Amino acid sequence: MKKLMITGFSGFVSRHFLNYLVENGHEYQVLGLDVNPPKFQLSEYEPDLKMDFKTANLLDKDVVDNVIKEFKPDYILHLASFSSVAYSWQHPAECFTNNTNIFLNVTEALRNNDLNNCRVLSVGSSEEYGNVTKDQLPLREDMQLFPVSPYAVARVAQENMAKVLADSFDMNIMLTRSFNHMGPYQDERFVIPSFIRRILNIKAEGKSTGEIETGDITIIRDFVDVRDVVRAYYMLLTEGKPGEVYNICRGQGVALSEVIDIIADIVGVKVSTRVNQDFVRPGDNQMVVGSFEKIKADTGWESQIPLRQTLQDMVDNMR
Amino acid sequence: MKKLMITGFSGFVSRHFLNYLVENGHEYQVLGLDVNPPKFQLSEYEPDLKMDFKTANLLDKDVVDNVIKEFKPDYILHLASFSSVAYSWQHPAECFTNNTNIFLNVTEALRNNDLNNCRVLSVGSSEEYGNVTKDQLPLREDMQLFPVSPYAVARVAQENMAKVLADSFDMNIMLTRSFNHMGPYQDERFVIPSFIRRILNIKAEGKSTGEIETGDITIIRDFVDVRDVVRAYYMLLTEGKPGEVYNICRGQGVALSEVIDIIADIVGVKVSTRVNQDFVRPGDNQMVVGSFEKIKADTGWESQIPLRQTLQDMVDNMR
Repeated sequence: MKKLMITGFSGFVSRHFLNYLVENGHEYQVLGLDVNPPKFQLSEYEPDLKMDFKTANLLDKDVVDNVIKEFKPDYILHLASFSSVAYSWQHPAECFTNNTNIFLNVTEALRNNDLNNCRVLSVGSSEEYGNVTKDQLPLREDMQLFPVSPYAVARVAQENMAKVLADSFDMNIMLTRSFNHMGPYQDERFVIPSFIRRILNIKAEGKSTGEIETGDITIIRDFVDVRDVVRAYYMLLTEGKPGEVYNICRGQGVALSEVIDIIADIVGVKVSTRVNQDFVRPGDNQMVVGSFEKIKADTGWESQIPLRQTLQDMVDNMR
Repeated sequence: MKKLMITGFSGFVSRHFLNYLVENGHEYQVLGLDVNPPKFQLSEYEPDLKMDFKTANLLDKDVVDNVIKEFKPDYILHLASFSSVAYSWQHPAECFTNNTNIFLNVTEALRNNDLNNCRVLSVGSSEEYGNVTKDQLPLREDMQLFPVSPYAVARVAQENMAKVLADSFDMNIMLTRSFNHMGPYQDERFVIPSFIRRILNIKAEGKSTGEIETGDITIIRDFVDVRDVVRAYYMLLTEGKPGEVYNICRGQGVALSEVIDIIADIVGVKVSTRVNQDFVRPGDNQMVVGSFEKIKADTGWESQIPLRQTLQDMVDNMR
């Protein structure tokens, strides 16, 4: 049985990745690492998967080295990151070093233990593109990057280091620039789940109309279902080309206002919105849409789940 | 008297920078930082400059914070780096983190001590461009970068972080991509001084002809005199635009074979060469030439010292 290590194990993406493995009959010995315990039972995935979890701080080089030396992974899904944009603005240097250090601790542990054959998927973000104008859309992987936050700069550095490690040390590291993803179990601090919660609250109060406070809902994003995302991760982990970076996106833009309308329709209430300037991010891109041509060419992947289905499933999950 | 802090103080660039200040009547209170003591006497520069030196490891965040808190620099010339390419290939992660950490320790110390007004020149390298083809020459600052070594990746990350700190935290950080520089006092492990030493040895042995072992001497580089370089550093430190990166180069390519011919002519011997494949760097660029239009536009700088003069001065210094 092949061995798969997952960092950032306790987040919602990891859970969907495990679901994907089980639903598709893929058998792995899985070791999850996270600073926090998962919110699900490991036993939910047994006996299809052989499951283990370790509390681990990936900033501790020796911990990472010991875990990798002992487990000897064939695959690593590297989801862990310090991704809070707010925190990154307060602590730019710390955000940068934490993000790059956890990645380098993993890759150095592989090199030091002669595990260069291990296939690693390093998950990045569409934030790496930085400020973009509409005439540059859809965003393609070979475009020049203009990262504007410490978090995005760290992601770009991680990509560049991964390319060096792939090209010059024959390491099998694939990279993603994942666009906004959403789905069941997502933390309610994220924008779409927070919309759903507040719209469900209107319904729960027995009202047929209500108002929610928002940031700028004219902005357009390329939302992709987390279940499509984890299928892409599996395909890249097993078939992606080392040293290459792949957009993961639907390739379609949708305005936040439209998302709110669909949620309201699913829940069965009428929703009006009021912009709170505190929630508007200055300098935020008006429109972000990616190209999925590269991942499609290399693995055949494209998104399958329609937006309304994603939102329906999220509403059902949060009810 | 304005306060100037110089990191990487004990290298040959710093020495030329101090010469430049004295020769041009610029008065500063200077604090030098380095892990090694300088090879020159501080008193050589007094009383024109007020000189002090501290042994300091810039990887130690608290040391950097304390020094900056106490000295309160108006200017920082940040020359320090871990620039050994050989070491960077043996220890890619360490090279990356050391380089980015010393830079971030300096910038965080400035932020933490309300010294965002301090003007910082962060010295980078033409290595950041990575693999280039002849049709891309001369290299311009707005080109897409393809760094191929851990050292170069760290430099690019440092640039990107500096841009974020300049754009979003109003820090006054200017950046360079300095091309191959040379001049008196340069360490003999570098390629041009090592040629000169061996050609001087032929002469010293009383011979009129001799042979030296080299790497690939057909490669073409954009060599610039260190005294031109430090003049550029002073102009950028005082007049450069924050968040901007500047090539520092002569804008002319010269083959290593031609450099050897000029040195032989100056020394007065005939020199033949034999390629030792151990010295040939696989994947090295055949030709690197930069554009100096940007720094010229923003400060008026361009190189002044002819190549033969530089080599003559180096020969005289090493005799």
